[in-house]
Amino acid sequence: MKVKVVTRILEANERIALENRRFFDKAAVYDINLMSGPGAGKTSLLEKTLSLNTGLRIGVIEGDIAGSDDAERIERLGAPVVQINTGGACHLDANMIYEVLHDLPLQDLDLLVIENVGNLVCPAEFKVGEDIKVMVLSIAEGHDKPLKYPLMFQESAALILNKIDLAPYLDVDTGKIKRDALSLNPGLKIFEVSCKTGEGLSAWSEWLREKARKG
Amino acid sequence: MKVKVVTRILEANERIALENRRFFDKAAVYDINLMSGPGAGKTSLLEKTLSLNTGLRIGVIEGDIAGSDDAERIERLGAPVVQINTGGACHLDANMIYEVLHDLPLQDLDLLVIENVGNLVCPAEFKVGEDIKVMVLSIAEGHDKPLKYPLMFQESAALILNKIDLAPYLDVDTGKIKRDALSLNPGLKIFEVSCKTGEGLSAWSEWLREKARKG
Repeated sequence: MKVKVVTRILEANERIALENRRFFDKAAVYDINLMSGPGAGKTSLLEKTLSLNTGLRIGVIEGDIAGSDDAERIERLGAPVVQINTGGACHLDANMIYEVLHDLPLQDLDLLVIENVGNLVCPAEFKVGEDIKVMVLSIAEGHDKPLKYPLMFQESAALILNKIDLAPYLDVDTGKIKRDALSLNPGLKIFEVSCKTGEGLSAWSEWLREKARKG
Repeated sequence: MKVKVVTRILEANERIALENRRFFDKAAVYDINLMSGPGAGKTSLLEKTLSLNTGLRIGVIEGDIAGSDDAERIERLGAPVVQINTGGACHLDANMIYEVLHDLPLQDLDLLVIENVGNLVCPAEFKVGEDIKVMVLSIAEGHDKPLKYPLMFQESAALILNKIDLAPYLDVDTGKIKRDALSLNPGLKIFEVSCKTGEGLSAWSEWLREKARKG
């Protein structure tokens, strides 16, 4: 019974996600579902990406259980942004995105980034209408994460390994993270970055520009 | 409809949690539901706690989506341990605990720690039969976490602020974490620790011993 209910919810979600995707395609907006555990640096990555000269017109949907801190951080950089408060739900679903589609100037955007709730598990299960999923992992979370949370690594097109400036102070084997992530998903594109120092961000923004232009 | 289903699941969970709790009480075992986001240091805290001279006989239930890394780490220290693989579920529920109750020598234990799946959201919603909830937050996750993930801070009896050895290398305001956490839950007991250097762990283990003996 429990399984049946979940299946039905997932089916409804897939249908609405497909509608969202058509809507984005019609507006010619490339769409990224940005996911990570809490505090890995999704919003910092967005701030840095907005500050780099990508030539892309970027809009953002912020998903959080409570508060509007992240949307305020994005707004300060002049990008169109909508905050969704899930009020307890641990992930964004397609219907939440559907509800705010008309609150963004999609016709004027090249790229829409949907920043999901900080959670390394559930967001990977729910499509929101994205072209690709991108995940962030802070190396401070440790090197055991790919094998313990396999789905998000399998579902993502790119993995941003953030906070590499902390490497000298951590007992973490980033080589193992990369090996295990690639064993789960051989096509995964991996970027090692520090949103604090800026290291590695140009390679990421170049890849992003390439993706968004082809998309 | 969706809400109704969730309510029914939560009600069933509460009933089974109560059964588990009675079972623990009968065996005179104090029970902690240990929660955090991914990579905050729950298992490291357990390893350190087992190595300290608490005088408590401690058993562990490990909850992970996949793998048995954490149970192996605990077993190496000689503590009785059972690994639960949730196979995708983002939290432990009372029934998962009920299923393994007879796999642990409860009569020989003073304290049972149930290490939940790494997730700062969902585990706080599901009782498993615990006396108290304890949460770990790595300061590398940032100072915005209490207000963005309020429920876990509200539900916990204690907050372990881990990885304080990283403070000099982070732009994080631990004072804000503590203020916001206490505004959500004025009775919250806060420990600042480093499982790497051992700092702050004796205060935690003393509190734990006190709790388990009274419980």
